Amino acid sequence: MNAMDIKSINAAYLGKVNAALERATALENTPELLRNAMRYSLEAGGKRIRPCLVLGVCDMLSGNENGSEGQTREMALCLACGLEMIHTYSLIHDDLPSVDNDDMRRGRPSNHKVFGEGQAVFAGDALLTYAFEWMLENGLRFENKNYYRAMLEIAKRAGASGMVAGQSLDLIAEAEKTMDEAMLYRIHRRKTADMLTAAILAGAYCANAGETQLNVLERYADKLGLLFQLTDDILDAEGDAALMGKTLGKDAENNKLTFVSLYGLETAKEMAKQIAVEAHALLCGNFADGAEYLHGMIDYIKDRKN
Amino acid sequence: MNAMDIKSINAAYLGKVNAALERATALENTPELLRNAMRYSLEAGGKRIRPCLVLGVCDMLSGNENGSEGQTREMALCLACGLEMIHTYSLIHDDLPSVDNDDMRRGRPSNHKVFGEGQAVFAGDALLTYAFEWMLENGLRFENKNYYRAMLEIAKRAGASGMVAGQSLDLIAEAEKTMDEAMLYRIHRRKTADMLTAAILAGAYCANAGETQLNVLERYADKLGLLFQLTDDILDAEGDAALMGKTLGKDAENNKLTFVSLYGLETAKEMAKQIAVEAHALLCGNFADGAEYLHGMIDYIKDRKN
Repeated sequence: MNAMDIKSINAAYLGKVNAALERATALENTPELLRNAMRYSLEAGGKRIRPCLVLGVCDMLSGNENGSEGQTREMALCLACGLEMIHTYSLIHDDLPSVDNDDMRRGRPSNHKVFGEGQAVFAGDALLTYAFEWMLENGLRFENKNYYRAMLEIAKRAGASGMVAGQSLDLIAEAEKTMDEAMLYRIHRRKTADMLTAAILAGAYCANAGETQLNVLERYADKLGLLFQLTDDILDAEGDAALMGKTLGKDAENNKLTFVSLYGLETAKEMAKQIAVEAHALLCGNFADGAEYLHGMIDYIKDRKN
Repeated sequence: MNAMDIKSINAAYLGKVNAALERATALENTPELLRNAMRYSLEAGGKRIRPCLVLGVCDMLSGNENGSEGQTREMALCLACGLEMIHTYSLIHDDLPSVDNDDMRRGRPSNHKVFGEGQAVFAGDALLTYAFEWMLENGLRFENKNYYRAMLEIAKRAGASGMVAGQSLDLIAEAEKTMDEAMLYRIHRRKTADMLTAAILAGAYCANAGETQLNVLERYADKLGLLFQLTDDILDAEGDAALMGKTLGKDAENNKLTFVSLYGLETAKEMAKQIAVEAHALLCGNFADGAEYLHGMIDYIKDRKN
């Protein structure tokens, strides 16, 4: 699968996810301001890599011979939407003045700059709660144990031992100006890799994957997560450096703990290449073929420009 | 059931809930600071009225003849803990400087005064997510559709059309110094009554209640919620007034929208008495007997001192 293929496949998934999110967030019983604040951040979504992964893995593993194909894909779409709502809420809270204090997000003023800080806290809370409401409401329709397993995977990796744990550690590292390799991996794994892993495993649960497949996919997800963070840090450093006319960006200058600030830009780029090779090899060793989507995602993530 | 009975029954429930919360929040994979912040607020819990209601309604409706009695009560206990985690997170976020800016909660410094504002945001996020993680993890064990119905009820009433909606409206009313009866009821219903209703209905779902019972219980919950808010506002006004040596407390002086600031203290007290009478009458009209626990809760809530 070449770079062109994966882009058009993900574009198709993006269309599906955006339409489903639109339907899911009519929110007729939600007061206007809260609804607007929730939708403002949800609509600002970018490539929606996590929901694409849910759909892509589910399609890859379930093929066309699955008897309950319709429901399998519908389950994946509901979980994909829930996951994106959770990801979006995490960005709103990350941008708050008491956390990263970011005024801009994806080229627009961040949520609290538009709706005020208190309302941004609530917009995040509402999106997080609504993610579970949405997934539960549909779960009653599906009556499928794997669907609930996937929901549990999402909750675990989004919460107190996953993403929120990573955000909390990141805030400590920031305050203490920590520059420590073990801490960097600890934060990265929870803050970034866990949600990508949740996406991949949720898709796999929908397709009724077995233990062996789940284990391989978890190892793949770990590598994809590391690759994602490396390229994120590299893009940030290069973007900031271009703005500042310097070799390294503001994260490095501010001693923010990133792969670039810790290892330097060139080493980070080498690490990204290496981890991509390992991820491809892992897939080749475990899926004879049929894993084209996941091969494609490695390069999609490595070669992205934003 | 006299006031003494209900107190000792709730004390027994409180013991069960506290022990279950203690077990539920070992949080071995959560970083120390985040775990401490989550537990700090959870351990500061007061009477735990919501989880008591889950257990009380379940016991009341399931009796002793239920074949799967053990599991019914275990389901109720898991939901009770989830509900209390959600209630606790909402207090942490409500106390934030950008919302109510309260430095104290239940006689101790509020979460953000101890752990910092950013960490308090995350402690709340982690508690909310963990509530669903905990309920889902146990749900896989129960495999009971009513359990998931109860979870959905909790998510709905805690979220974008329930409690968070109420918090968001309250913040708007506060900023705009709104003094409007319709707005007061709109806020109160979502911010307070919805979570009490969720507790009562969750207990009923566990006991496999039918549509008729659910409808009566929802109407009862609505009255109990109003009674709870009325007494809360009355206690606040009297407490503040005692501190300030005046007739009315600071909420009224600050034009904060409460039942006392809108109607005055005496009218609010009359309303509380009236709604208690209505709630008792509703129970008498629909449960021949066997609703002693719910009768007891009316007076427990009306006559509480904090």
